[in-house]
Amino acid sequence: MAIQKPSIPKGTRDFSPAEVNRRQYIIQTIQQQFVLHGFSPIETPSFENLSTLTGKYGEEGDRLIFKILNSGDYLSKVSDTILEEKNSQKLISHISDKALRYDLTVPFARYVVQHQNEITFPFKRYQIQPVWRADRPQKGRYREFYQCDADVVGSDSLWQEVEFIGLYDAVFSALRLPVDIQINNRKILSGLAEVANISDQLIDFTVALDKLDKIGEDAVKQEMLSKGISPQAIELLSPLFSMQGNYQEQLTQLSSLLSTSEIGKKGIEELTFVFENVHHIGLDTAKLELNLTLARGLDYYTGAIFEVKSRQGEFSSSIGGGGRYDDLTGIFGLKDISGVGISFGLDRIYLVLEELNLFPDEKTSNQTQALFINFGSQEAKTVTTLVKKLRREGVVAEMYPEEARMKKQLNYADKNKVAYVVIIGSEELKAQKAQVKNMETGDQFDLDFEALVPFFNQNNSSTSCKKDC
Amino acid sequence: MAIQKPSIPKGTRDFSPAEVNRRQYIIQTIQQQFVLHGFSPIETPSFENLSTLTGKYGEEGDRLIFKILNSGDYLSKVSDTILEEKNSQKLISHISDKALRYDLTVPFARYVVQHQNEITFPFKRYQIQPVWRADRPQKGRYREFYQCDADVVGSDSLWQEVEFIGLYDAVFSALRLPVDIQINNRKILSGLAEVANISDQLIDFTVALDKLDKIGEDAVKQEMLSKGISPQAIELLSPLFSMQGNYQEQLTQLSSLLSTSEIGKKGIEELTFVFENVHHIGLDTAKLELNLTLARGLDYYTGAIFEVKSRQGEFSSSIGGGGRYDDLTGIFGLKDISGVGISFGLDRIYLVLEELNLFPDEKTSNQTQALFINFGSQEAKTVTTLVKKLRREGVVAEMYPEEARMKKQLNYADKNKVAYVVIIGSEELKAQKAQVKNMETGDQFDLDFEALVPFFNQNNSSTSCKKDC
Repeated sequence: MAIQKPSIPKGTRDFSPAEVNRRQYIIQTIQQQFVLHGFSPIETPSFENLSTLTGKYGEEGDRLIFKILNSGDYLSKVSDTILEEKNSQKLISHISDKALRYDLTVPFARYVVQHQNEITFPFKRYQIQPVWRADRPQKGRYREFYQCDADVVGSDSLWQEVEFIGLYDAVFSALRLPVDIQINNRKILSGLAEVANISDQLIDFTVALDKLDKIGEDAVKQEMLSKGISPQAIELLSPLFSMQGNYQEQLTQLSSLLSTSEIGKKGIEELTFVFENVHHIGLDTAKLELNLTLARGLDYYTGAIFEVKSRQGEFSSSIGGGGRYDDLTGIFGLKDISGVGISFGLDRIYLVLEELNLFPDEKTSNQTQALFINFGSQEAKTVTTLVKKLRREGVVAEMYPEEARMKKQLNYADKNKVAYVVIIGSEELKAQKAQVKNMETGDQFDLDFEALVPFFNQNNSSTSCKKDC
Repeated sequence: MAIQKPSIPKGTRDFSPAEVNRRQYIIQTIQQQFVLHGFSPIETPSFENLSTLTGKYGEEGDRLIFKILNSGDYLSKVSDTILEEKNSQKLISHISDKALRYDLTVPFARYVVQHQNEITFPFKRYQIQPVWRADRPQKGRYREFYQCDADVVGSDSLWQEVEFIGLYDAVFSALRLPVDIQINNRKILSGLAEVANISDQLIDFTVALDKLDKIGEDAVKQEMLSKGISPQAIELLSPLFSMQGNYQEQLTQLSSLLSTSEIGKKGIEELTFVFENVHHIGLDTAKLELNLTLARGLDYYTGAIFEVKSRQGEFSSSIGGGGRYDDLTGIFGLKDISGVGISFGLDRIYLVLEELNLFPDEKTSNQTQALFINFGSQEAKTVTTLVKKLRREGVVAEMYPEEARMKKQLNYADKNKVAYVVIIGSEELKAQKAQVKNMETGDQFDLDFEALVPFFNQNNSSTSCKKDC
């Protein structure tokens, strides 16, 4: 067999032990707060029926969905006529009926509808799973990445919005990362469109507005013009780009602009409720900011819109987002189920924590507390029973598998950042004493065999189970 | 848009909160022992280059690999001639260059070769990720399922085999599931083939032998005959089917049979070493059994072969397996790296634990300790601050999101198996006392607001963080 030079598909990644441990640290921090806030986990299959996903993410989204080729003789039922056309798009539905999930929101909507009779509403679920997109890879954007979502469906209470802001604060405070939580409300945008008499162009308006961060005010206005939004409407909307002041001051300015729009006034009312109650309960480290230009392209948002950004570091992209959607399950036949949810971008949070050096040290290394040197089968017989005793007490311990040169065994300990090396040769075996070496300080001392468990147990209490417990 | 009746692809599953929690219980038990035994986690992409996977699992395996359709105009580079042939198999390589991983072993071998310069050998890695197979679904067999693998590469020490048996024992003891760990050694099978003069038919011999459990001795012999193994050879091998006695007694009988085979004697020596040392260290609840007919179809095993079965319940299939392979990384160009590894079958372990009712109660339900009744915005203002205080202490607490009828709120608590309901209406607000109701016993009592945190904190110490900590 010809030898292959191994590689992985572009946009995908291998994760080393240190990387997995750091990712787990983020995931577990998020998960712990999801649980504390009363969310329950669900999982859905990696691939869904293609028809479940198609048409939910726009034309661009449809193209970026990874399709799975049907098994077996998948061409046998394809007519020659279709094959001769050589139309890649058209052929898809004939040779593929499954696709990798593109996000967790649509599978969740499908889950809620499919299992509606087993669910007690309001249903608070969280889901932490990978998603796949055939996007062009770039920094912080991969073809396989994790989403960490929490949603509540079956309640239109604004207390949920307040809760989610608290949840963002709890997670990012636990990660020691100060963030800005930006909020807007789709009803404000609808109200503005109403006042400017462009309600039928709401999507064009919000899609353009959503690009403000990336392309700037002039280009946004240019895009609006090119979409047929009148210069008068744009003029009327331009206070949006120059809002000054804090959350409440902006809402006050907005009030006069939206005084003739019922939906706009509702938006102001909702934003006021959220602000007052978040303020009342208090945030630990996050800041809540009103950003009236926050639109997030997704047209299923109907109320609150969230976006989270780090207050420190170079990475200015969103590290979380979410919003209120009034009819997501409608596409699968279950009407009038309001939902609201937020998402954490694991990969981007990772980049920010790495840049700001916020990963706790013990997350970046192997956990082995005690590596026992292997001096051959006689010593190994005793060592393996000691190792078993330590593990039973929750101490991560191992014996080097082979009677290799001491230097090689110590190198292994060093490379794997083992905390202590334990030396039991024939002398030590006779005396029932082990030599213990602290690999960080170089300190070396003797311990009776019976003292090993208490020693590591005590040492362990501060570090053990940090990853799994 | 036409409304779709939602469903999921066959062989895949949605997991409810109770199911995710139970699966997490198994995964975390396994993971904790992996860590205690000094293994480090890695993760590899869900899809690999198709060429990485093709040819590694036999013809049958190649068919069962899920291929991913290339993105964009995937037909544009396919010649008309190839398309006209309408040969499904042949077309694959032209329209698909990626495939979902089929197991964790081949991606691991690819990882080791690709990252050989960053790795310190012996490399002890664990990996817990889903794999996908286009197999016909049946009980305990799905198209998407998790594998939980631990492997060591870069050491041919037999202490690893001893370690893995201890690891199986540690995991299944922690799960309170008594198991038999069956062991065999490919060198014994090679030795027998040598003695019977059918060394060139070793694969046919082991593939047939591997079916003994399923089809019985006569059918196995029939298959061997049909593969051209002579009746004389089968006669000579038949003691294999009627071995009596314990581990050591069987080895003794085998010794005379294999006295003329070097490789066979090596196999006996290895099995003896493993047995003596496992016996010396001791197993908590598992039993180690020699099963000389254990072959496991995989032809890359070169030494020890493991298989684990539950000692209780109806489910007789394997719930774990593994073995020693001397040249797995050779296919990717890295020679002479011996490895040994074991795998845990999450789904099958789940079925057995469910059948035997071995899941701890708290794993099957939501964790909410305190549900606060919502009496409207005035009370909610106070309640939300109390909820925040409780969460900060690690108590899972929530407020019902809406001012709904009391009956509806209590029903929510009941369905979600909430431990306590906390009632703070206008009276309680005035008196700064909450009514607390134990949902299991029905007991109800008053607590000062300041007493809530200590009460739940104490209550919590026994149950909190069971899932995440």
